[in-house]
Amino acid sequence: MEVGVLFSGGKDSTLAALLLDGFYDVTLVHAGFGVGDAAGQAATTAEAVGFPFERLELDREVADDAVDAMVADGFPRNGIQQVHEHALERAAAEGFDAIADGSRRDDRVPTVSRAWAQSLEDRHGVDYLSPLSGFGRTAVDRLVERNLVVEEAPSEQLSKGDYEAELRVLLAETAGEGAVDEVFPDHVQTRVVGIRDRA
Amino acid sequence: MEVGVLFSGGKDSTLAALLLDGFYDVTLVHAGFGVGDAAGQAATTAEAVGFPFERLELDREVADDAVDAMVADGFPRNGIQQVHEHALERAAAEGFDAIADGSRRDDRVPTVSRAWAQSLEDRHGVDYLSPLSGFGRTAVDRLVERNLVVEEAPSEQLSKGDYEAELRVLLAETAGEGAVDEVFPDHVQTRVVGIRDRA
Repeated sequence: MEVGVLFSGGKDSTLAALLLDGFYDVTLVHAGFGVGDAAGQAATTAEAVGFPFERLELDREVADDAVDAMVADGFPRNGIQQVHEHALERAAAEGFDAIADGSRRDDRVPTVSRAWAQSLEDRHGVDYLSPLSGFGRTAVDRLVERNLVVEEAPSEQLSKGDYEAELRVLLAETAGEGAVDEVFPDHVQTRVVGIRDRA
Repeated sequence: MEVGVLFSGGKDSTLAALLLDGFYDVTLVHAGFGVGDAAGQAATTAEAVGFPFERLELDREVADDAVDAMVADGFPRNGIQQVHEHALERAAAEGFDAIADGSRRDDRVPTVSRAWAQSLEDRHGVDYLSPLSGFGRTAVDRLVERNLVVEEAPSEQLSKGDYEAELRVLLAETAGEGAVDEVFPDHVQTRVVGIRDRA
């Protein structure tokens, strides 16, 4: 069975792929807007972790709507959620038997409710998997430490492949750097650079 | 890292163990009340699937309370839920780094809320994992078909290792066979008899 895993190059989506490996044929799918080098960053990580990689171009108007929502809200949650739902809808139409993401039990955003997941599955004839949703924060941290090689840096210094990286650029273009600082509080981000030998 | 997987010999708990294998050292833990041969059934399946196996004796008064709840309710949900929470509490005190169960996204009972899981983790210093909670019914069915060898039969004909098997016996002793038929509607049960070669 073929699964397309929405992939940013971050630790959650990488770990989700590892958990599915052996049960599915995994393809890492970077969904993005072609802003900056987010897809290139994800491709580099995909090569390092050894899974096939595909790019999925999302609709730019979804990004623009998300930026508008972030400016209006002053926080990123609703914008990120809109983009994630769009990415899942688009990935579900790509012909995989299943699609997956790196959603965790303790994540507040993005979230995928059971009802929304079932609707996606019914409309596209595809299984939606969130292999980390049965793992809490501590369990995920331990799995990352044992299975992945990561580097850490403040958000603005780390080139990443996730939605946030692209939306930060678009937000700065639309509303200025000050808006970026207001919407995205400083926090340390991580990027996966390899997997550990699990033997 | 050592994980104790609550194990009935059914397909969900077996599949949960397979998903964790490679990331944790898996021990299958049968939690029961010593009624009938539930533990023996689970031990047979554990040997067939090739994981270490332990028995955990639960408090008989929890079973009695569960039977009382089932008789009062006329359906099994609350009784099963009480037994499952007790089993998780007891397993969490066994010294594993993590404990796990076979809860699925689309299960209605037993359920473990995020708040309850975090409380369990905090009080016992253990991670709680539900590796199937990110998989819907269709995805689980496909994984079972590809990875497990199962046999099917009506509930009353299949000797099983789950709570239901023990609670049916206790319910019959307490309230008669008629109560069993009322509380547990007929349905086909499955029992795992082996795992498929995944090479």
